[in-house]
Amino acid sequence: MNTVRVGAIGGGQLARMMGDAAAQAGVDFKVLAEAEGSSARAATSMVGDYNQLAVVEDFAATVDVITFDHEHVPIAILEQLEKQGKQIQPQSSALAFAQNKLKMRKKLADFDLPMPAWAEVVTAAQLDAFISQQGGVAILKTPIGGYDGKGVRVVRSSADAADWLGNLDKFGGSLLAEEKVDFVREVAQLSARNRNGEFAAWPLVETRQVDGVCSVVIAPAPNSSPELLHSASAIARSVAEGLSVTGVLAVEMFQARDGRLLINELAMRPHNSGHFSIEGSVTSQFDQHLRAVSNLPLGNTELVAEHAVMINLLGVDDSHEFAPRFAAARAAHPSVNFHDYGKAPRKGRKMGHITVVGSNVDSLLAEANAAAAVLLRSN
Amino acid sequence: MNTVRVGAIGGGQLARMMGDAAAQAGVDFKVLAEAEGSSARAATSMVGDYNQLAVVEDFAATVDVITFDHEHVPIAILEQLEKQGKQIQPQSSALAFAQNKLKMRKKLADFDLPMPAWAEVVTAAQLDAFISQQGGVAILKTPIGGYDGKGVRVVRSSADAADWLGNLDKFGGSLLAEEKVDFVREVAQLSARNRNGEFAAWPLVETRQVDGVCSVVIAPAPNSSPELLHSASAIARSVAEGLSVTGVLAVEMFQARDGRLLINELAMRPHNSGHFSIEGSVTSQFDQHLRAVSNLPLGNTELVAEHAVMINLLGVDDSHEFAPRFAAARAAHPSVNFHDYGKAPRKGRKMGHITVVGSNVDSLLAEANAAAAVLLRSN
Repeated sequence: MNTVRVGAIGGGQLARMMGDAAAQAGVDFKVLAEAEGSSARAATSMVGDYNQLAVVEDFAATVDVITFDHEHVPIAILEQLEKQGKQIQPQSSALAFAQNKLKMRKKLADFDLPMPAWAEVVTAAQLDAFISQQGGVAILKTPIGGYDGKGVRVVRSSADAADWLGNLDKFGGSLLAEEKVDFVREVAQLSARNRNGEFAAWPLVETRQVDGVCSVVIAPAPNSSPELLHSASAIARSVAEGLSVTGVLAVEMFQARDGRLLINELAMRPHNSGHFSIEGSVTSQFDQHLRAVSNLPLGNTELVAEHAVMINLLGVDDSHEFAPRFAAARAAHPSVNFHDYGKAPRKGRKMGHITVVGSNVDSLLAEANAAAAVLLRSN
Repeated sequence: MNTVRVGAIGGGQLARMMGDAAAQAGVDFKVLAEAEGSSARAATSMVGDYNQLAVVEDFAATVDVITFDHEHVPIAILEQLEKQGKQIQPQSSALAFAQNKLKMRKKLADFDLPMPAWAEVVTAAQLDAFISQQGGVAILKTPIGGYDGKGVRVVRSSADAADWLGNLDKFGGSLLAEEKVDFVREVAQLSARNRNGEFAAWPLVETRQVDGVCSVVIAPAPNSSPELLHSASAIARSVAEGLSVTGVLAVEMFQARDGRLLINELAMRPHNSGHFSIEGSVTSQFDQHLRAVSNLPLGNTELVAEHAVMINLLGVDDSHEFAPRFAAARAAHPSVNFHDYGKAPRKGRKMGHITVVGSNVDSLLAEANAAAAVLLRSN
């Protein structure tokens, strides 16, 4: 068979959903998972620690292309594999910008891409100076290791970051201070680029976060002017080409009160803001990611209806199961698409999501929220 | 976990696509496959012969509900498992009608459901009498073991069936002779019924066969009056309720020149005529089948667009691979959804299918045919 063998490092729900797309497209898909019983267990061919070169080498030997469920694999390991001639997609040189937010800010600055004001800080004095310059408040981030609101805090004085400033070696030697943007909403621009350089963007989406975790996605972002949509797509293209990203790229942005789009975070893999595309778009982000990393032509990113709404199902506590509530949720909401990641319950954990597709955003939001409420209720 | 464990007997593409739907819905899904490397290999937990009670018992012990990729499991084995308290869905008493076309005709006659004229024949004289009564031509079927055009032939004299008449014990002791219907087209009514009796039907589809194998499906069937659509759905409901079918039921029918719908075949599982529903309907037939056999409420069966067109990718010969042609097909047809079942090539084999969704049937047919042509061409 000439089928491309794609391997994902990481056994989370992104690898699980890549596996669904792979089965459909006839792609031979394998997963290197951290542990037995991961969300992507159906496609797991190996369990091991991705921080160990020998483990990743063994896994790489079984596939043609390596891609990712997360961005935590050490760059040094990926560089080693690239030297051995393995296809790593996205390449380590691109992934490095998703791993390190400071490196990302510096690189985006090279391309004059719109961002919040930012500064690299090493000392308390530098941080206080930045805070003062920003009117008394700033966002402080650890350049590496943060996600879903972790490694990010609002600071009004260097005293708010004494613990981080005292442990800089854990974060690569410095911290990233950023302007606290006065934004009207958060948006995300999902796109994909294949190894030939072909680029395709989905419509801009609005993302609503709760406690730093994505909660609701509305596609396309309501009340968006053609200029805004075009601008967002152009930013994503500049990032994808400037950083030589392959695969799916999510650019999370603030829409500032003055109308500017400012880049917040990057992810170089399928992303929570793109789950709507499974039912909502002609080509899902998982199918597209597999095409892009295999260097196949990209699919059509148009929506199949006027709108799609996605709501995350976050763990209520460490015992609340959604499974027994699915019957009631499905009975009351037959048009809702339910996704369950097969994870054990834990408070705040991404356990699944639901998507509903149609023409009226308000109705879709109401329906999705009502369906989620059935799954989340305690009785 | 309260997740229902569903096991499918048979490792074909239907089990493969049930597995995709199961992963999405968080259903724990297992497959008993005939051989290693089957189409449903990702979900295969056991390889063995479903004609052996001990094998099926071992598999049944690992799941809560048994369902099917095909209808070939001996009824005696299923009855044995039911006596042991296992959930078999559809139940053996229903499945028996899908296994034996003569039994099916007799049962449908009990409910006065519309069918071609038919007769059970054991002798050449009986067959010749039926042929004569039908104006010199009839369709002859082996009651058991036929599918995709196998076990069906056109006969003008009992001499055309001498081999079958001489081996009646292979086919259950008799043959089924049927009227050769003067039809304008073939249609299929897909529906589902859960264990509580909830029933849901998709819109009627038109099916185009080549050499007895489904080639093209158009959903909904073009130029269908509301009366025709209603009548088709009512027939499916009568069959589902009359035969106590659970899970997906496909009722293949002729639309006769005089306007009548006449039942041709039944399948009690996801069916080729319903593959369009993966992208074309709010709820796919695979998701719906899992819901129905797990006794969960059924999903919305409306289409997401005005039309969907599905074309089967049949094996060209024993060496023609589609995989190397996917790049060109995807490049030229970015709106087409490609499905590859991961099977080794064989002439006439169902290797995959493609689906395209939109508003204009003629454009969709043209696009799907053009995309299929890229995959099928020899250079």
